[in-house]
Amino acid sequence: MIDSIEARDIRFPTSRDSHGSDAMNPDPDYSCAYVTLKMRGGDPAGNGLTFTIGRGNDLCVAAIEGLGKHLIGRSLDEFEADLGLASRLLLNDSQYRWLGPEKGVVHLAAAALINAVWDALAKRAKKPLWRYVADMSPEQIVSAIDFRHISDFLSKEEALHRLTQQAPGKAARIEFLTREGYPAYTTSAGWIGYSDAQIVQLLKGAYAEGWRHFKIKVGGDLATDVRRCALFRETLGKDVKLSVDANQVWNIDQAVAAIKAIAPYNIYWVEEPTSPDDVLGHKEIARQVAPIQLATGEHAHNKVMFKQFLQAQAIGFCQIDSCRLAGVNEVIAVMLMADKAGIPVCPHAGGVGLCEYVQHLSMIDFVCISGTMENRVIEHAAHLHQHFRNPIEIRNGRYLVPSAPGYSVDLWPQSMADHEFPHGKVWAEETVAS
Amino acid sequence: MIDSIEARDIRFPTSRDSHGSDAMNPDPDYSCAYVTLKMRGGDPAGNGLTFTIGRGNDLCVAAIEGLGKHLIGRSLDEFEADLGLASRLLLNDSQYRWLGPEKGVVHLAAAALINAVWDALAKRAKKPLWRYVADMSPEQIVSAIDFRHISDFLSKEEALHRLTQQAPGKAARIEFLTREGYPAYTTSAGWIGYSDAQIVQLLKGAYAEGWRHFKIKVGGDLATDVRRCALFRETLGKDVKLSVDANQVWNIDQAVAAIKAIAPYNIYWVEEPTSPDDVLGHKEIARQVAPIQLATGEHAHNKVMFKQFLQAQAIGFCQIDSCRLAGVNEVIAVMLMADKAGIPVCPHAGGVGLCEYVQHLSMIDFVCISGTMENRVIEHAAHLHQHFRNPIEIRNGRYLVPSAPGYSVDLWPQSMADHEFPHGKVWAEETVAS
Repeated sequence: MIDSIEARDIRFPTSRDSHGSDAMNPDPDYSCAYVTLKMRGGDPAGNGLTFTIGRGNDLCVAAIEGLGKHLIGRSLDEFEADLGLASRLLLNDSQYRWLGPEKGVVHLAAAALINAVWDALAKRAKKPLWRYVADMSPEQIVSAIDFRHISDFLSKEEALHRLTQQAPGKAARIEFLTREGYPAYTTSAGWIGYSDAQIVQLLKGAYAEGWRHFKIKVGGDLATDVRRCALFRETLGKDVKLSVDANQVWNIDQAVAAIKAIAPYNIYWVEEPTSPDDVLGHKEIARQVAPIQLATGEHAHNKVMFKQFLQAQAIGFCQIDSCRLAGVNEVIAVMLMADKAGIPVCPHAGGVGLCEYVQHLSMIDFVCISGTMENRVIEHAAHLHQHFRNPIEIRNGRYLVPSAPGYSVDLWPQSMADHEFPHGKVWAEETVAS
Repeated sequence: MIDSIEARDIRFPTSRDSHGSDAMNPDPDYSCAYVTLKMRGGDPAGNGLTFTIGRGNDLCVAAIEGLGKHLIGRSLDEFEADLGLASRLLLNDSQYRWLGPEKGVVHLAAAALINAVWDALAKRAKKPLWRYVADMSPEQIVSAIDFRHISDFLSKEEALHRLTQQAPGKAARIEFLTREGYPAYTTSAGWIGYSDAQIVQLLKGAYAEGWRHFKIKVGGDLATDVRRCALFRETLGKDVKLSVDANQVWNIDQAVAAIKAIAPYNIYWVEEPTSPDDVLGHKEIARQVAPIQLATGEHAHNKVMFKQFLQAQAIGFCQIDSCRLAGVNEVIAVMLMADKAGIPVCPHAGGVGLCEYVQHLSMIDFVCISGTMENRVIEHAAHLHQHFRNPIEIRNGRYLVPSAPGYSVDLWPQSMADHEFPHGKVWAEETVAS
């Protein structure tokens, strides 16, 4: 039974070296609001986090503390018997809901809490999260989903039908996945604050490690964007994949112009070309730059936004976020919708803990839903994994299957103590303008 | 010059009597995060608020305190010389922006702060806000708007052209408005927690006061919705307007079925039939229930959402919110887009302070932008006005023009002291589950 909720404000000073910098976010301090569901009665504690880039992480901590009261006194047996319970308790508090609804700080906080419940359930079952879900029946998986506001695109019956259709192949796919891992791409070479020389060096190093799909940041001035794409092809040639990420800075006409300017460099996808709320804008850009495909999702705040991106055929790649969406439940709903639309799920990762989270989600997609890895890749960024008890493992540009029980976001106690804001030793050393 | 920011958590226990209750929000405690920009050097203090319905109001207070640091040390002269400055300082903090972007708690907090800056500017000019804006040149008004992500629908040149076109008629419209006031409708008779007898009594009383346009809450079970609409027509006959509000609870097919069931009662608009994020869903509902018109906006979180509702021709009425959108600047942008689309602006009000706020916005729309009151009404709800120093004045179902300098949301000090959460006397009296 959940006895209490502990939420902590953990921040890493990544802005000091421009790690994670892009056109919209020049100085992120990768951070997380980290929650522990403390148990009494012998069940394992559950950990969850939501990712932010610094200031305002305290708001997520406060929201977790407020919302989290709904979970106290509930048992893991209750949550396992009703996989939608945690989501309902947290998303249907009408007073908190007003502050979104289903978006912003409150939704981010709900994600951390919901993921912490799944972490505890998987740990109790002594399985990594992906396997805990993969071993469920189609009926159990569907029971986790709230179909309100999406049933016009995906009904409960359709979801159940698809999961049932894919169930016979699960054992073979688990075997394949365990042997081969899951394909990935890396963002670590192309942050916007990096110099050309730094990028060339990083690209060559990543290629030597086995990476064949890369993403670089664009959205600065157009000449620089073109130069960076040219630099990429000069460095690694034409036989590797290049995606670019504009982080929302363009208007529609700017996006079209910029994408046409970099098109000669064979762009696999263009990510966040404009406002993440602009379904119709993405549709218009996609129409004008076809056959180049758009990708978005790291700021798509809920299943209703993804539903529309899919309905409008506005995106070619569906970039779910593990804690922008309200945790495992809402992600599964979105992955089922993407499958119906025939759009590959390629999760947003990087930050802190996102790689650890999303590997499980892509694996659930492969084993239970889409049944394929075709055109699917998990994002990878190299930072901050050392702070996790069970960090991701990458080999030849692929994620290896996580084997530790749970959802893989347990931070080491010392890492938390050092990076707790504002009094941990990393922050106490400097004068911080929070 | 802004010397410091004071933010307070003010909550009114409206849930005790079901005031404000609807299908999604059964027990709101109308609340506000209330900010005062304290000045040094003789300028008047500026007050702003953002509206919530209880739990989580503390998150808005904390966000105001964090974001508000960007305003400290700035002078009113700077804000008046660059009307977009406050918005840029508050919306472009990339670390806070991550928590939205441009939505949720952070955007609500930005709204309170931006509105407080406008309040201080109008007070210094000794004008009510609507008149302060109405006396500006088209160039000044346009300078308040950030066209990023909306320029595909409304360019700066188009906005300037429209304002310039309407400028010669301003004096006559100000005279008319001052004499006649602005039309309104009332929501106070139809909260979902009220009994039939209570509704009948309230409708008759409101009719006697001069009201001719009413809104009632629907979205309970369908039989009840139909009964309440029938009750309305039995009580007041067919020569008054009836709008209904479902507060987001329906799926697309449920919305269509329900609207068709109540259609015989001559429904003026159907408000929030489904998720406020679902532009395409609204479009589909509108197609199926035409000629009945949809209205939405109180949860449309930014100009990009409104842009899409207007582009898709999904709504017949544009319900701006004064502090869900990021204050006066973003509201003006949306009102200009609605004008371009030929869609009437009918602001969301009620709550606490929203009537006081939005009267100014509709008056700006009339004087500077649309130039008409046709099909336009301001929402009215009867609660909590006594707590304001300059409350709205209603006569014969119309808002009278506010004359006190500023944006009309100054709360009386005693009201704040009594309702401050959790230690004000209204809250200290009871055991509160926050």
